[in-house]
Amino acid sequence: MERLKSVPLSDIEIDDGFWNQYIVLVQQKMLPYQWRVLNDQEKGAAKSHCIENFRIAAGESRGEYYGMVFQDTDVAKWIEALAYSIQRKRNPELEKHADEVIDLIGRAQHPDGYLNTYYTVKEPGNRWSNLREGHELYTAGHMIEAAVAYHNATEKKQFLNIVCRLADCICRTFGEGREQIQGCPGHPEIELALVKLYQVTEQKRYLEMAKYFIDIRGNHKPDRFDEEQKKTGFHHVFSEFEHLGYNNIQAHMPVREQDRADGHAVRALYLYSAMADIGYEYQDQTIMKACRALFDNIVNRQMFVTGSVGAAADGECFTCDYDLPNNYNYSETCASIALAMFAQRMLSIERDGKYADIFERTLYNGVLSGMALNGTEFFYVNPLETVPEQLKANRTLHHVLPYRKKWMGVACCPPNIARTISSLGNYIYQVSRDTIFLNLFISGKTVIKMNGHDVTLILNTKYPYEGTVQLKIDNPHNVLLNLAIREPGWGKIKNLCTGSGTLMRGEKEKGYIYLKQDKIKETDFLSFEIEIEPILVAAHPRVRADVGKVAIVKGPLVYCLEEIDNGKNLGSIVIKADCDLQTTFDPQLFGGINRISIEAFRVSEKGWGNQLYRPASLQYEPCSIKAIPYCMWNNRGNGEMLVWIHSFF
Amino acid sequence: MERLKSVPLSDIEIDDGFWNQYIVLVQQKMLPYQWRVLNDQEKGAAKSHCIENFRIAAGESRGEYYGMVFQDTDVAKWIEALAYSIQRKRNPELEKHADEVIDLIGRAQHPDGYLNTYYTVKEPGNRWSNLREGHELYTAGHMIEAAVAYHNATEKKQFLNIVCRLADCICRTFGEGREQIQGCPGHPEIELALVKLYQVTEQKRYLEMAKYFIDIRGNHKPDRFDEEQKKTGFHHVFSEFEHLGYNNIQAHMPVREQDRADGHAVRALYLYSAMADIGYEYQDQTIMKACRALFDNIVNRQMFVTGSVGAAADGECFTCDYDLPNNYNYSETCASIALAMFAQRMLSIERDGKYADIFERTLYNGVLSGMALNGTEFFYVNPLETVPEQLKANRTLHHVLPYRKKWMGVACCPPNIARTISSLGNYIYQVSRDTIFLNLFISGKTVIKMNGHDVTLILNTKYPYEGTVQLKIDNPHNVLLNLAIREPGWGKIKNLCTGSGTLMRGEKEKGYIYLKQDKIKETDFLSFEIEIEPILVAAHPRVRADVGKVAIVKGPLVYCLEEIDNGKNLGSIVIKADCDLQTTFDPQLFGGINRISIEAFRVSEKGWGNQLYRPASLQYEPCSIKAIPYCMWNNRGNGEMLVWIHSFF
Repeated sequence: MERLKSVPLSDIEIDDGFWNQYIVLVQQKMLPYQWRVLNDQEKGAAKSHCIENFRIAAGESRGEYYGMVFQDTDVAKWIEALAYSIQRKRNPELEKHADEVIDLIGRAQHPDGYLNTYYTVKEPGNRWSNLREGHELYTAGHMIEAAVAYHNATEKKQFLNIVCRLADCICRTFGEGREQIQGCPGHPEIELALVKLYQVTEQKRYLEMAKYFIDIRGNHKPDRFDEEQKKTGFHHVFSEFEHLGYNNIQAHMPVREQDRADGHAVRALYLYSAMADIGYEYQDQTIMKACRALFDNIVNRQMFVTGSVGAAADGECFTCDYDLPNNYNYSETCASIALAMFAQRMLSIERDGKYADIFERTLYNGVLSGMALNGTEFFYVNPLETVPEQLKANRTLHHVLPYRKKWMGVACCPPNIARTISSLGNYIYQVSRDTIFLNLFISGKTVIKMNGHDVTLILNTKYPYEGTVQLKIDNPHNVLLNLAIREPGWGKIKNLCTGSGTLMRGEKEKGYIYLKQDKIKETDFLSFEIEIEPILVAAHPRVRADVGKVAIVKGPLVYCLEEIDNGKNLGSIVIKADCDLQTTFDPQLFGGINRISIEAFRVSEKGWGNQLYRPASLQYEPCSIKAIPYCMWNNRGNGEMLVWIHSFF
Repeated sequence: MERLKSVPLSDIEIDDGFWNQYIVLVQQKMLPYQWRVLNDQEKGAAKSHCIENFRIAAGESRGEYYGMVFQDTDVAKWIEALAYSIQRKRNPELEKHADEVIDLIGRAQHPDGYLNTYYTVKEPGNRWSNLREGHELYTAGHMIEAAVAYHNATEKKQFLNIVCRLADCICRTFGEGREQIQGCPGHPEIELALVKLYQVTEQKRYLEMAKYFIDIRGNHKPDRFDEEQKKTGFHHVFSEFEHLGYNNIQAHMPVREQDRADGHAVRALYLYSAMADIGYEYQDQTIMKACRALFDNIVNRQMFVTGSVGAAADGECFTCDYDLPNNYNYSETCASIALAMFAQRMLSIERDGKYADIFERTLYNGVLSGMALNGTEFFYVNPLETVPEQLKANRTLHHVLPYRKKWMGVACCPPNIARTISSLGNYIYQVSRDTIFLNLFISGKTVIKMNGHDVTLILNTKYPYEGTVQLKIDNPHNVLLNLAIREPGWGKIKNLCTGSGTLMRGEKEKGYIYLKQDKIKETDFLSFEIEIEPILVAAHPRVRADVGKVAIVKGPLVYCLEEIDNGKNLGSIVIKADCDLQTTFDPQLFGGINRISIEAFRVSEKGWGNQLYRPASLQYEPCSIKAIPYCMWNNRGNGEMLVWIHSFF
């Protein structure tokens, strides 16, 4: 079955009540802000030195390298995000910055194509000596992704040429040849990037290089990671991770044998994303089976209800099934993004709505929670429960912050969010030869080329707050096409009808309602309702952290309680499993959001006096509580937050 | 009011169904085992090198110092434990070892009295250069405690003379004189030890030295801790603790102003113990007020139901009020011991049963859980909930072990348990000029000198499993005396009557029933019942970790569920708050213990299929569960354990 394709961002105009503010934030705040950070012009943000590193590498500035070994990726992700955002509407000022920095990147490139400021400036001569921790291939991968995006947006060739030379250098360096290195990177990313480069250049060697990295992982004796540590002069880049095993970098066994998500969550999901790509390109059913097993393990055993992953801070990693602690989890924003990437690939290959459900759950919660509504502050770690006083006092939770920070030394998440949001249009529709798949319910106008002719779709909805979706299809050439409408796993689609009100019946398959060509070729308007009532969700009884608790979920949005709305000690709030969940639109808050109100109870503190323990006999006091979407927490000052609420059953 | 005194251990013969096994363990297993460990003769235990360090320091052996900076304390605590255990019944073999090692310690002492093998062997010339981390005064304190105990047990003077020379060296070194050091130790211990040395030698200078260390803490500008770090050649002993503030060593403010427990829990409680001593000796009401506030803060805000303390691993410290996580707590065994020490001192000064309640709660749970029933394996960290699979996978909990270890590099807890259990007799009775206070209900025979004449008390009980207590008082000289019987805060005393069955009425005051002399002088037998029914206990609603949960408690014993009795996934067990708690004596288990059985429920996994989350609607399946005393967990292999159980209210 052919893989679904995205619609070029140039053909998509989003105009959506929920998303507009985020898109504007990225375009008008984040991209200029991040550019200033990369140039160390932003007060209060951690030093970046990213651009300066390139100047030093190009021999145009003196000074010391500064930053992480993968500092280059910050500018790469910035260019990538910019590229997506200017694909529809150019931005001459930022594009000028990008062109200049691309020039600079080119000047920092070695004659043989090698490109990496850390190893150029700080450890010349040591290139490829530490595949496990050196992040050279990871950095190269982000350069390639950025260049592909920038080429797609601007049709300019320069950056693409730079990364082709870089990719060629990699192709010469790695492989089974006697003079080549037999190994793969500690941090996957190059693999999926090379697939993208193959897709745009049609040079099969890039695809084959990607497959080589997939094939050799956990599958080569003697292991390159072992070997490199024995060489004289070897030193650890991250000594704090020395104790972590090969499972942390998914190199503990051949990838085709891996069936449960293990190790560093971002690495794992970048790898699994590439595995899906390679599995499709080579029609490798063993890889696809592994991908399905890994996806299943993640979403049914190791995923927080917010779509975030990574239960442990040390190793930033997956742990064991049902280990989903709410207040000391890691749940890195980048890992949510990576899970969305994996889900999106599986969706495009398998055409199964369950992947879209996870993509959406992750996007609307674990990804969006990573950024403040001011566009300049970010969470790396996304807890589901915080008490600021505890975070301050108990350093077991030192990785959890009660507020978003402006920028950090390891600045992976902010530009990762920027590139995700600015490429949002890619995920609304996907297209096969004869079918348009509607995956995300986001208002806007999209032009899709079907059979050589433009089909224009205008979607109108107040989703995720309301479930009504109206879709105008303008198909002047009467192109034959099918429409596949995603029916979320959590809510049925009702009242699917034509403009004239005639009910339509489609065929349901794997989370989609298929309207065959004979049903819609002459239809210029259709509408439907998604059941999007607020509900209480429970976790599997083996999730120790959530026994006796419920989460409030409405459609794709997970809700949370904040101290500013509900007072302190959120942990003592109890709601009845059959309580009434009242949705009210609050036009004042965050530009207009849905709140959910509940008549609840608090465990009474009356009669406790000074005691800490006493014979069990609790009293409850009624109280009203208000929940807001989890992704918007911590935008009104610092305070307690809670997703999983105690419940009576 | 005069402080209550302990009865000399030589006059106490414990013969108790619950405690005999522990006492035998200490005498017959732990003390010989620990001696072998100290001499590196025990396979499977971590290297100690403790005795060898003394040989090297004495110039009698060559080699390198090995171990922690406070390695000397291991032999000190061993001698102290041995002293308590031989005070009633001598043990020529171990006593010979002790005498020889005391000789060796004497030969390792400097001519000026200084004694510390680390600074003698590894950092000669650097003595007193790092008060914050060097542990010299801490080590000296343990030497002094050991010497006092050994003198009390054997009447031998040698060790006492050694530590008097050491204490004199300290008295010369510290103080406000121009040539003296103005400072106090990072780890308190010397203070309470000097009080003990004063009590046995009646040399007031030792008491004054102790008071100086109390007075100067957090109260000296410029601070010695700051100053010493600025000196050339300064280096950290524990660089992993550099980030911790002065609150971790209770030096963030003058001790008289401290009113909430803060910082490293063992340090805190050794300090508070010494504060109580000094507060009493100097009748310093400001200190006593601070002690009462600190005690109140601990037991009503920061103490686990098992009597353990220290919510955070990083810093091994108190955190904030109501922060009592069950699965990532620290709850060091030594901290429980230290809390018992503080409680015991407050009890002797204030004659308030609330202190005895905490002493007993801590002793029977947080202290005893530290050792295996084989006497040779130990917990340092005492969780209230463990899932071995999670401990293996999630390194946020790396400090928690699912099983007891044989010995560790930092071997503070094992000998600390040994000295606590071998001095148990000290805590059963305490005595004022005219009143005998019965604090712990432990069977045995005790001879107490009242007014120059022997009064013999023979106590008989199956406590803590049953509440009946019989007390035979043999008072041949008809000494006038009062008897104060502790009435636990958790259970009333009923049917207090004479041997002939006549009900007796005493005056109740602060947790004691006072039987005045006219009531008991001619009574040779009395008996009473302590209400000791199993109950479910709840925690204050602000304890987030325990909302919606109950703990099973019977008398002083906290109970827990183990996987071996109840299967996996203990977290999904739910009990009704009004359930029937069935006590049954199991003569087979651990030499005979009470189990508690409950008809409970499990959240059903039926119908969940492969889902992780679904709309909330739980089903329950009935099940029977069995609880055992918490202190005895992990003696039948590794598995899950749970104290706080989900409950319906």
